[in-house]
Amino acid sequence: MTDARTAPDSSRRSERSRRAIYDAALALVGEVGYGRTTIEGIAARAGVGKQTIYRWWPSKGAVLLEAFLDLADRAAAEAAEAADGTGADAAGGPGQPGGPGEYAIPDTGDLAADLRLVLRATVDEMNSPAYDAPARALTAEGILDAEVGAVFVEKLLEPQLRLYTDRLNAARDAGGVRADLDPRIALELFVGPLAHRWLLRTLPLTHAYADTIVDYAVHGLAPRP
Amino acid sequence: MTDARTAPDSSRRSERSRRAIYDAALALVGEVGYGRTTIEGIAARAGVGKQTIYRWWPSKGAVLLEAFLDLADRAAAEAAEAADGTGADAAGGPGQPGGPGEYAIPDTGDLAADLRLVLRATVDEMNSPAYDAPARALTAEGILDAEVGAVFVEKLLEPQLRLYTDRLNAARDAGGVRADLDPRIALELFVGPLAHRWLLRTLPLTHAYADTIVDYAVHGLAPRP
Repeated sequence: MTDARTAPDSSRRSERSRRAIYDAALALVGEVGYGRTTIEGIAARAGVGKQTIYRWWPSKGAVLLEAFLDLADRAAAEAAEAADGTGADAAGGPGQPGGPGEYAIPDTGDLAADLRLVLRATVDEMNSPAYDAPARALTAEGILDAEVGAVFVEKLLEPQLRLYTDRLNAARDAGGVRADLDPRIALELFVGPLAHRWLLRTLPLTHAYADTIVDYAVHGLAPRP
Repeated sequence: MTDARTAPDSSRRSERSRRAIYDAALALVGEVGYGRTTIEGIAARAGVGKQTIYRWWPSKGAVLLEAFLDLADRAAAEAAEAADGTGADAAGGPGQPGGPGEYAIPDTGDLAADLRLVLRATVDEMNSPAYDAPARALTAEGILDAEVGAVFVEKLLEPQLRLYTDRLNAARDAGGVRADLDPRIALELFVGPLAHRWLLRTLPLTHAYADTIVDYAVHGLAPRP
């Protein structure tokens, strides 16, 4: 991404349009749902011509995917900043291996502490209206339409889940979890309960809840005598 | 429910209509979604007049709720039969405390074995097309519409979750899990991962997966030295 302070006017305008399109797409899908969100609607709300959108993206699914990737990036950047602020080891950041937009779960050597940090940030994200409405709309669409679901799982969810497998593999190398652990299954003990409570709205999503999930699950992954 | 062999003709007809309405409601919501399912559509497909439906239920939500309760009852009855067949202690059955339609998670004294049985049955249910399509449609609607979601969580989900709290409380009384366990949170380590994998279709839902989740999670709830 070009630095807006030194970029020529056209880049600055492009960046402003792109941001307006992301915001419009997320707001619209949260308000009227995936099915009734259209390129025309996004263009009108963003105050751009629909040709501008078609020039950059082939479909509304593609716009929404990028808008969500951008939202997730910003949430991760905020979480990393918050982690810095509390003195915890910073959570990755742009420029980490994997390229821009890739973050890592911190590795302070204390798996439970690191996962509490991440799950508390996830709780905050789920409780934030800017995330909740569009993410619900998109998740519901993916639940109904396997093709939409597959794209979002591959592009949006799995990269996030890989951060958990990386951290769990590191814990395994350090002897902090059982040697025969399957990290791809183990991570679901953390993300599954939070998603269940968020999507079905069974009970409030709180930091105390996240801490308890981490406490039970990390203990379950520990080496056994 | 009246025994059809001795019931008068009108009861037999009613029971046949009720079954046809349930089947039509579930099939329709799975095919066209919650929003486009109507009382008229259900009546047409079931081969009954729509007044028949309005006489028994106030809304399509109410029909669908009962159809799902019936589906869950039949699945639980099948699971109980399967458990009988394998020699495990039977899973409750109609007539258990709590009234008809209430089942219990078996208590053989081996929490992990009992939960493996239940989670494997849940996997089978999620993999069954008769359950998958309507349950997805209903879950997606509940994710989007908080009022629909609240009714289905209260009437359909929470009674199922109480079976887990009952079993976990029994395990706590027997000293099989930590004394300070919060069973309402702990149960989410079992149902959360399965729901996540089912709804988002991340990876196949298998018995081996259910067994691994039970293995990790039950260990996490164990008393600590």
